[in-house]
Amino acid sequence: MFCWPISIYYENTDAGGVVYHANYLNFFERARTEWLKSIGISQSQLLQQDIAFVVKHCDISFRIAAKFEQNLKVLSNMSNMKKASMTFHQSLIDDDGNLYCEAHVTVACVNLSKMRPTAIPKQIIQELMRAS
Amino acid sequence: MFCWPISIYYENTDAGGVVYHANYLNFFERARTEWLKSIGISQSQLLQQDIAFVVKHCDISFRIAAKFEQNLKVLSNMSNMKKASMTFHQSLIDDDGNLYCEAHVTVACVNLSKMRPTAIPKQIIQELMRAS
Amino acid sequence: MFCWPISIYYENTDAGGVVYHANYLNFFERARTEWLKSIGISQSQLLQQDIAFVVKHCDISFRIAAKFEQNLKVLSNMSNMKKASMTFHQSLIDDDGNLYCEAHVTVACVNLSKMRPTAIPKQIIQELMRAS
Amino acid sequence: MFCWPISIYYENTDAGGVVYHANYLNFFERARTEWLKSIGISQSQLLQQDIAFVVKHCDISFRIAAKFEQNLKVLSNMSNMKKASMTFHQSLIDDDGNLYCEAHVTVACVNLSKMRPTAIPKQIIQELMRAS
Repeated sequence: MFCWPISIYYENTDAGGVVYHANYLNFFERARTEWLKSIGISQSQLLQQDIAFVVKHCDISFRIAAKFEQNLKVLSNMSNMKKASMTFHQSLIDDDGNLYCEAHVTVACVNLSKMRPTAIPKQIIQELMRAS
Repeated sequence: MFCWPISIYYENTDAGGVVYHANYLNFFERARTEWLKSIGISQSQLLQQDIAFVVKHCDISFRIAAKFEQNLKVLSNMSNMKKASMTFHQSLIDDDGNLYCEAHVTVACVNLSKMRPTAIPKQIIQELMRAS
Repeated sequence: MFCWPISIYYENTDAGGVVYHANYLNFFERARTEWLKSIGISQSQLLQQDIAFVVKHCDISFRIAAKFEQNLKVLSNMSNMKKASMTFHQSLIDDDGNLYCEAHVTVACVNLSKMRPTAIPKQIIQELMRAS
Repeated sequence: MFCWPISIYYENTDAGGVVYHANYLNFFERARTEWLKSIGISQSQLLQQDIAFVVKHCDISFRIAAKFEQNLKVLSNMSNMKKASMTFHQSLIDDDGNLYCEAHVTVACVNLSKMRPTAIPKQIIQELMRAS
């Protein structure tokens, strides 16, 4: 499990006074990026090799509306792993364990210029499964 | 069915060269807002009555990556209606009918200050069902 | 002068109940993109030639806070033109002519891979000056 | 001077491969929010008292394009202080001191429901001037 802190700023909120729903996907994406960075994977370098992780599917439940200036954290786990895609289970919680938002996010490894699936580099599979 | 045009700008893209995944939720939200406007419902006025539509769940599939300067459109349908929530089926397509992104979005009607479910105003139910 | 309509959605607002300040820059960028499109310039095609317009400087005044569901329009003019950069004067107004936001935006034409200034294609200069 | 770290994620970039220009304003806004938090000021609490800081003017220069996965920091200083407004000088730099973006941001203290200027709370003036 990988844990990453999130602070809520004005940019994340909307006129309803709480976090705009699409922005929770940003928080989960940040957490995936940081998890990869923590195991030594730079997506910038992957991009230069024409490889990118592209979100293919997301099932997301919004439970409690997060508010401006709250400090929360994203917990991330690998819930499924295939040759060219992987599914993360990610949740946004506060320090008391209250669940704000929860998602299953399936990410495909693609060759960017061809927009075709390509095998996930072995190092990534090994490291993420070890950490899950 | 309600149809709403979407143009892709720099603000919607990311370094992968295509639309950033979370932004498809914005396109769907714009289409819901315009649908409500088209039947005479102002969410601004609802906000002043302390009522808001809050996204509770979203199941979204990303099929084809949309690109900068593409002209697309969102098709929206009501797929389920309850007393205090409704589910939309929304898809983003181009003029040739190619499917870029598709989602089922469940929206709850809430009393904002209490963050409690409240009944959807009858006029909205009638008008959206008539138009679906 | 080029005129482009803007509708305000939830995604553009923040917890203050009005448009989040950085989003006015998005509105101005959309208007520049549409102005270029209207004279037959595709920035996507320029990107494929490794050319992009990059914002170098912006002086922006926020006068009236725009609100959710307002319908506004961006007026754009060319206020200065050099070999490799141009300055736009852009303003966001409502149908009564009230001024919400105003900016001078200087955009440089760059070779993207070198991130070096490059001459603005002649067609663009001629067309934008004709339209200003 | 107040220093705040910024990490660049996909959400901050655009199809040009670098940070989308409007997003630098978000980074500066986060830094101002954190500076206020660091001296004990909660803007959420101010909002409940119907008080908000609203950006009125911004003069911003974009020097070096920041890239995906870069780690940068915002330096913030108070450059001017009036009864109901204050001007910050903020810059985004990397660990080698290279300047990516620089802005003078003038923020007004307003009564939100009236959208009228109101005096900045004394505690804020004293603490920010002490820290500048």
